[in-house]
Amino acid sequence: MAGSSFGTIFRVTTWGESHGKALGVTIDGCPAGIPLCEEDIQKELDRRKPGSNPYGTKRQESDTANILSGVFEGRTTGTPISIVVYNADHHSADYSNIADKFRPGHADFGFHSKYGFRDYRGGGRSSGRETLCRVAAGAVAKKVLSALNINITAYTVAIGPVEIDRSKADIDRRFDNPLLMPDNEAAEKAAAYLDKCMSECDSVGGVAECVITGVPAGVGEPVFDKLDAVLSMAIMSIGAVKGIEFGVGFEAAKLKGSQNNDPFIAENGNISKLSNNSGGILGGISDGSDIVFRAAFKPTPSIAKPQQTVNVNGENTEIVIKGRHDPIIVPRAIVVVEAMSAIALTDMILRSIPSKADDIIRHFSKE
Amino acid sequence: MAGSSFGTIFRVTTWGESHGKALGVTIDGCPAGIPLCEEDIQKELDRRKPGSNPYGTKRQESDTANILSGVFEGRTTGTPISIVVYNADHHSADYSNIADKFRPGHADFGFHSKYGFRDYRGGGRSSGRETLCRVAAGAVAKKVLSALNINITAYTVAIGPVEIDRSKADIDRRFDNPLLMPDNEAAEKAAAYLDKCMSECDSVGGVAECVITGVPAGVGEPVFDKLDAVLSMAIMSIGAVKGIEFGVGFEAAKLKGSQNNDPFIAENGNISKLSNNSGGILGGISDGSDIVFRAAFKPTPSIAKPQQTVNVNGENTEIVIKGRHDPIIVPRAIVVVEAMSAIALTDMILRSIPSKADDIIRHFSKE
Amino acid sequence: MAGSSFGTIFRVTTWGESHGKALGVTIDGCPAGIPLCEEDIQKELDRRKPGSNPYGTKRQESDTANILSGVFEGRTTGTPISIVVYNADHHSADYSNIADKFRPGHADFGFHSKYGFRDYRGGGRSSGRETLCRVAAGAVAKKVLSALNINITAYTVAIGPVEIDRSKADIDRRFDNPLLMPDNEAAEKAAAYLDKCMSECDSVGGVAECVITGVPAGVGEPVFDKLDAVLSMAIMSIGAVKGIEFGVGFEAAKLKGSQNNDPFIAENGNISKLSNNSGGILGGISDGSDIVFRAAFKPTPSIAKPQQTVNVNGENTEIVIKGRHDPIIVPRAIVVVEAMSAIALTDMILRSIPSKADDIIRHFSKE
Amino acid sequence: MAGSSFGTIFRVTTWGESHGKALGVTIDGCPAGIPLCEEDIQKELDRRKPGSNPYGTKRQESDTANILSGVFEGRTTGTPISIVVYNADHHSADYSNIADKFRPGHADFGFHSKYGFRDYRGGGRSSGRETLCRVAAGAVAKKVLSALNINITAYTVAIGPVEIDRSKADIDRRFDNPLLMPDNEAAEKAAAYLDKCMSECDSVGGVAECVITGVPAGVGEPVFDKLDAVLSMAIMSIGAVKGIEFGVGFEAAKLKGSQNNDPFIAENGNISKLSNNSGGILGGISDGSDIVFRAAFKPTPSIAKPQQTVNVNGENTEIVIKGRHDPIIVPRAIVVVEAMSAIALTDMILRSIPSKADDIIRHFSKE
Repeated sequence: MAGSSFGTIFRVTTWGESHGKALGVTIDGCPAGIPLCEEDIQKELDRRKPGSNPYGTKRQESDTANILSGVFEGRTTGTPISIVVYNADHHSADYSNIADKFRPGHADFGFHSKYGFRDYRGGGRSSGRETLCRVAAGAVAKKVLSALNINITAYTVAIGPVEIDRSKADIDRRFDNPLLMPDNEAAEKAAAYLDKCMSECDSVGGVAECVITGVPAGVGEPVFDKLDAVLSMAIMSIGAVKGIEFGVGFEAAKLKGSQNNDPFIAENGNISKLSNNSGGILGGISDGSDIVFRAAFKPTPSIAKPQQTVNVNGENTEIVIKGRHDPIIVPRAIVVVEAMSAIALTDMILRSIPSKADDIIRHFSKE
Repeated sequence: MAGSSFGTIFRVTTWGESHGKALGVTIDGCPAGIPLCEEDIQKELDRRKPGSNPYGTKRQESDTANILSGVFEGRTTGTPISIVVYNADHHSADYSNIADKFRPGHADFGFHSKYGFRDYRGGGRSSGRETLCRVAAGAVAKKVLSALNINITAYTVAIGPVEIDRSKADIDRRFDNPLLMPDNEAAEKAAAYLDKCMSECDSVGGVAECVITGVPAGVGEPVFDKLDAVLSMAIMSIGAVKGIEFGVGFEAAKLKGSQNNDPFIAENGNISKLSNNSGGILGGISDGSDIVFRAAFKPTPSIAKPQQTVNVNGENTEIVIKGRHDPIIVPRAIVVVEAMSAIALTDMILRSIPSKADDIIRHFSKE
Repeated sequence: MAGSSFGTIFRVTTWGESHGKALGVTIDGCPAGIPLCEEDIQKELDRRKPGSNPYGTKRQESDTANILSGVFEGRTTGTPISIVVYNADHHSADYSNIADKFRPGHADFGFHSKYGFRDYRGGGRSSGRETLCRVAAGAVAKKVLSALNINITAYTVAIGPVEIDRSKADIDRRFDNPLLMPDNEAAEKAAAYLDKCMSECDSVGGVAECVITGVPAGVGEPVFDKLDAVLSMAIMSIGAVKGIEFGVGFEAAKLKGSQNNDPFIAENGNISKLSNNSGGILGGISDGSDIVFRAAFKPTPSIAKPQQTVNVNGENTEIVIKGRHDPIIVPRAIVVVEAMSAIALTDMILRSIPSKADDIIRHFSKE
Repeated sequence: MAGSSFGTIFRVTTWGESHGKALGVTIDGCPAGIPLCEEDIQKELDRRKPGSNPYGTKRQESDTANILSGVFEGRTTGTPISIVVYNADHHSADYSNIADKFRPGHADFGFHSKYGFRDYRGGGRSSGRETLCRVAAGAVAKKVLSALNINITAYTVAIGPVEIDRSKADIDRRFDNPLLMPDNEAAEKAAAYLDKCMSECDSVGGVAECVITGVPAGVGEPVFDKLDAVLSMAIMSIGAVKGIEFGVGFEAAKLKGSQNNDPFIAENGNISKLSNNSGGILGGISDGSDIVFRAAFKPTPSIAKPQQTVNVNGENTEIVIKGRHDPIIVPRAIVVVEAMSAIALTDMILRSIPSKADDIIRHFSKE
């Protein structure tokens, strides 16, 4: 209820502060019998690890995944999977600069208003470091989805004013550059732009796109728990995200119905759509096409430039944020976008199973 | 779990089909002692009622609110408030045209895939008519919020390609035109555009904006249940919404940190921000500024133009959707946007109350 | 959250006061395709209807079930089923006697403390009349269970000091007497005892027993949501229940392990138990045997004898409760016990479905 | 959803297997500002630790509490509190005896039916060792309750056929004997009985009683989430509990209304009851009296006597359970009963806070 859990059947609960002893996640409701080992988690954690790209924080962390429960002889048991990552480099150095000041663009003021005080070390619970728990849980969700032939791929489509050229984009080559853009030319321009901003002690925003293939039609609940509503909550819960859109998204507002509607077509017994303006979801329920959405990330709020602000005593002051901060959030957040998509989708897929009486009768009669 | 409920403390559950006997909503967890009468509900229902504007469906419904429980001597009792609206004009005329065809842009195919069959009369549960339950519950939420001096105002900022001119916009005059645009000049252009589309048997999309004033800092939960994440789910769960953004939204992706961060300032003991690019929410927690977001609506999928589609037997066919359909969703959806915002916000406010030990001790010691 | 909902997948939400306009229930998450009509509900409502037995209240109510949503062409659609029962005989006569006094044994004082005031007409929300919504929802749950060949049967095993003789009991003959005792001789003694108490303006307690057959092994969640824990909550939530026990129950506390453990036995490929001291549940998970529990009901708290109490102004006073009250709760509560068992079990069965990866893969591969 | 979480506002999630690397618990929703340190947890863990009494298992575990998050400078921060206990003595010795056999009285068969296989080492997730997470979370809940002057005390009232003599019982002396009975004479008899059973390679059941003082009137939700219903679920979710009763409990079934009803009385502005047959809860809401309930524990199912059973291949066989097993569960479960009561009550108390509009307005106006 205090909001550290996500999902109803496949339920993820995270804990941990940026500079506490450890961070971790418990996944309750993962079906029994899924092959799972620490390497499955580690592989994903390594993608968001500090130092995984030149534009990330310089904090040194191995971010090693430890599975403490829920796996027996290489398979999930159906009981909660607990994954813990111990913090190594939490140098509790010198917070005097920020301990009593509200950093602009951060949750400090909100935390202070809500709880009366806060763990100011590195942002505490509101640190981007919290996302490593999402990535760990996402790795488990991806194992479930891969058993169902569902794949999730996110990548960068814009960094500051630099956008990819879709006519040249090749998603399979997104790992060719550290910005995870599927267009190397755009990536080069973006890198130049980033370098300039960094030299100005400034940061940059960007846009991530995510494509999910293999989702059968019929996933999602009709009214409040629409598949796109749940995915929106999942993605908007990532710290710096300020907007999300599905399919043609905000462009749909400018279109006519005859332009925006995707015609259905039947071929060899399969029903599909001739276009995918809907982004794979109609009326909140998957329509069998690829699910496609974009998320807008604001620029990293921690910048070295001096900023005007207020301290906990309500006095006007100035703040200069030193330390190790990513000048751009998007590339390291790509795996987080995939993770939250995987978590939300796995839950909605499991929730969709007991929808038809016939399926339920068949389930028990086979036993 | 099947997704007809929203909220945890202030919990709203809706039911009903477009052409069933009635639709209704149960609100569990409304605090006791809030003044409430049927007029409070009716006033809001009338804003979305068919016929409330010239661009709405021609269906004749009085949409009369009946409070069946939870109110005693003019005040809420703390027990569930049940509101029912009986359907009058559900002429079950002739559905032969659509009963066995999947309408493009609609949830028909998803429902069929999920449940094996569907109530095809007027869209059944996936009809826009379902939103009247949201509006009724929203009216109750607004009563709670008004006791806390919180106000919610939504309006239209774009219809098709026609956008308001913010330099001329005056929110207080949004009711001057049937499109609920706070810029009458833009409204006239939009009306002309709409007329043209209607003559082409086509429909149009648009964008709604919502401003919430008076929310104290500290509302929202830190990780998954961020205030903007929950509001996003609430708004994205409205049928035709394809995107949402807070504050500067997608524009933030193009900004630098020094441009996007809002400086804090203290004046006369109050802490506020010099700008509001954040849209009133930082790190998922309200920052005391106005909450501002925009939602993109796709064009009404029901159009009279012939469209290619598939029937329940998996055969290619054509569909022509007759009947009474809004050529534009946004104006009638404005009150729905306000309602979902009110429901989500009321719940998050009630959830935020037991955050500090001191407040809890004070609560019980006073008793 | 305010506690008017039960269940996670098969989710029941009730509303309504004893003397309001109506009472009702919404069932969200019922699988699509279950045959359902108003007679299915009515049949069960008639079992608890006032006047259904000579020891019940004299209030005149037809208690007619109206299904307002969720059923199309005789089958559930997967969308919420709304059932409403309108109150007819809510003679708001004369409450001056109880409006401002806390009735001993009732929730009046708790409601007043919690909400600051209460709907005092006939107990308002805390009236036993609230259980008709449970019975209506239970009727739907029984339809789901019957599709799985699961049966629930409750009956009376004790009224005041009169207990059934188990050596003579025949559950199939429980309807032979109005007390629903499976032992007619005991029923006669109980009736005589009841008549005596009624002549003394007093009331009587009793014990109900419930047997559930056909539940496959493997239903229930390992830790907090054990099947017996959830059933206990379901049954203890019925107004007058003060205790519950499974299998040999409190007697188990006196036994040795070698006496209490039920040996497993395999016969023709089936695994069963040689005894059923466990009452069909081990470690919170069904073991394939009959589920058996007993619930203790206190005597009806509304009695005509004068009682000492306090009024809302905190003054000592006396109360004499007139009106139409059952001298014994158990016989009319039997169908409520069955209903709550059916609701809780249906939910736990649906929750148990996505437990194994293999089942999930098979579910989607067949589609 | 898979049932490893309890509570809605104060939400506890446990994980871990008997012979895995560790067990742990995450508490989300604990109010900020509660003083908390590892000693608070350790003190309670030590009460259930193996070896804490002569009738407990001989397994050697230090059961050391590690708080990994949620506490800063000695106070809770409002963010999730993670507590981990590493397993030391998990000698994975020799399970060949039980790995493929279903132990009578245990969850083995249920787990196997549900998940297809199970972590058989020491019972895995269904081990009594899981309760140490409940005790750790209970320690946190007790800190919250103690800030509100609420106290929870449990003790043993019966072991096998030996019951305490209530005329001689003194709860304050319950720690005088290792069986935690508030009657030393009974404790001696019980010890002798236990020794005899142990010499027969057998085990014994018993009854625990729990008294909660200081709960204000008005806690509990009216319909399904009655305070006694929620407490029943909490207590029945403890492995070996087979029954629970509040106040006079099953005896109430034999009483008349005039005997069972507790008269209210006003003295010096306070309203209380002349008796407490209700056990402190009326209509599911606390009535201001002490909350009193009893729970029946079955005998430890693990006994060294040979027992008839079935193996995973469905063949009849015999089982002899060696190893380190408590011959009586109750004394070590006393602290678990207190813990689950504390968790459930803390959650219900926090849930009761936003019940009145006036309180909510006051809450925000003060800020």
